[in-house]
Amino acid sequence: MPEGEFEFITRRLRPLATARGALDLADDAALLDPSPGRQLVLAKDAMVAGVHFLEDDPPAQIARKLVRVNLSDLAAMGAAPLGYLLALARPKAIADHWLGEFCAGLAADNAEFGIALLGGDTVATPGPLTLSLTAIGEVPKGAALLRRGARAGDDVWVSGTLGDAALGLKVLQGEIDAEDDARAYLVERYRLPRPRLALGEALRGIATAAIDISDGLVADLGHILEVSGIGAELHADALPLSPAARDLPAARDAALAGGDDYELLFTACSERRPDVEALSRRLDLPISRIGAIDAGPGLRILDAAGRIVEPRSKGWAHF
Amino acid sequence: MPEGEFEFITRRLRPLATARGALDLADDAALLDPSPGRQLVLAKDAMVAGVHFLEDDPPAQIARKLVRVNLSDLAAMGAAPLGYLLALARPKAIADHWLGEFCAGLAADNAEFGIALLGGDTVATPGPLTLSLTAIGEVPKGAALLRRGARAGDDVWVSGTLGDAALGLKVLQGEIDAEDDARAYLVERYRLPRPRLALGEALRGIATAAIDISDGLVADLGHILEVSGIGAELHADALPLSPAARDLPAARDAALAGGDDYELLFTACSERRPDVEALSRRLDLPISRIGAIDAGPGLRILDAAGRIVEPRSKGWAHF
Repeated sequence: MPEGEFEFITRRLRPLATARGALDLADDAALLDPSPGRQLVLAKDAMVAGVHFLEDDPPAQIARKLVRVNLSDLAAMGAAPLGYLLALARPKAIADHWLGEFCAGLAADNAEFGIALLGGDTVATPGPLTLSLTAIGEVPKGAALLRRGARAGDDVWVSGTLGDAALGLKVLQGEIDAEDDARAYLVERYRLPRPRLALGEALRGIATAAIDISDGLVADLGHILEVSGIGAELHADALPLSPAARDLPAARDAALAGGDDYELLFTACSERRPDVEALSRRLDLPISRIGAIDAGPGLRILDAAGRIVEPRSKGWAHF
Repeated sequence: MPEGEFEFITRRLRPLATARGALDLADDAALLDPSPGRQLVLAKDAMVAGVHFLEDDPPAQIARKLVRVNLSDLAAMGAAPLGYLLALARPKAIADHWLGEFCAGLAADNAEFGIALLGGDTVATPGPLTLSLTAIGEVPKGAALLRRGARAGDDVWVSGTLGDAALGLKVLQGEIDAEDDARAYLVERYRLPRPRLALGEALRGIATAAIDISDGLVADLGHILEVSGIGAELHADALPLSPAARDLPAARDAALAGGDDYELLFTACSERRPDVEALSRRLDLPISRIGAIDAGPGLRILDAAGRIVEPRSKGWAHF
């Protein structure tokens, strides 16, 4: 007989609820003491089996991806994470050992990011496994990075490499082939995003606008342009590609329109170039200048010869 | 062609996001300024079509129930609500006008409770409509009502009437019949819970333990007994039944074990009886003394003749 809800909470979830305000998950809600002078930052992302992850992805990696896509939202605001609430809608087919591995994934990321489970809800569903997480972080008052704020003349920067996650998904779906090492790297990038929390915090006071790349570079830069009422020019040959992605025919399209990379895309005044470069060295994280903001409107992407590049797809549509 | 995600957010959700920290839903996360000297209270409840509501329930009432079950968790902690984040997993069969009515329900409860949408996520699902809401409230530091804290000798109190919602569900499912007026009342109690926020706030400093009745009286009192390490004796003839429920054969079982009433169950020292009675008059809300805490362990339910009553069911199992 499978574990009941209370057993699941007691055995699996309570050990993850190490914050005092989680009240051992024995109450209706969690308590949180905000630090003086700080604002709270609240992000909530949902994931559905078969839509946002593959049914046979390892359970621990599904858990960690769920945590990390939310932490990535906090990173994009320049926030430091505190903890999270979890809602889990469980189909009958999900076995207890699956849940055990899922919770082990949460435990791993609790340790890695210094966070804890605060509360949540577990329910039954006749549909696919559906997860929703609310991540809570904090920033010094008024210091949050926003999508609005980019100005004509600002540089456009991106952390890490682009397109890897979208290529990793294609590898898993059998749509493209690659060497074993490259396959493993790309699949890992799809399954286990690395929220750029240290970069986000360090960009407070430097970036004029920031967003994490979840929908794809073109779509997410579009969000910045729209709320800031500006345009941009990107240089396709400046897009950072990983060694694993570089030689694949779909690499440039994946870098422009592939989702799930969870790198930070940000703008900064051109006088701040030395600061960004110093940050890149300090964090040991590539940060690439890929274009510039202009008065706009719209986004132009140019190749090395100055010709307009049209991305095959504009990015990820949610529903 | 149905509305896309961005159109849905812009047209339907943005008007609900009246809090400044919601940033017009244009950012990755929301900002929240906690008031000095207050703790935040965070509740997260999920609802799945066919499990927690009926597919053909009116969309506005589904929205309001989702809001209210979460506000009820805040009420049980003695918290005042601030706002919420929403995750909505949408099956293709949900039409735009359905979403419009759903959002009208959110708007109605935003106005009724003085709250606002802060952020969230909308995703596609091949399964049933799945909703998750994270409600945020605040209490003066250290003043939250908890489930732990009940002591032998305390009175056990419950607000409103019990069993109505479970009977309303049976009416909708065709399992029991009742007069038209009674049907309408019971169905309304099932579909539109009334979170006892004013009572919860007023019970700070009076109640020794509190919980909202979502799983059923026996199950929820059991949670208090378990975390407080005590027992209780209830008087079945003291259970408050509504005029609509009173004459139905299943009324007592529904009052003992039916879920979804969202009344507050709390304990208080017997010297506080005049305070509780004064509160009942001030709030114009029945508050019934239904038993007493003892050293335990366990819960005994007695009828008018002092015989032990066994509830047919212990309450609601979640998965």
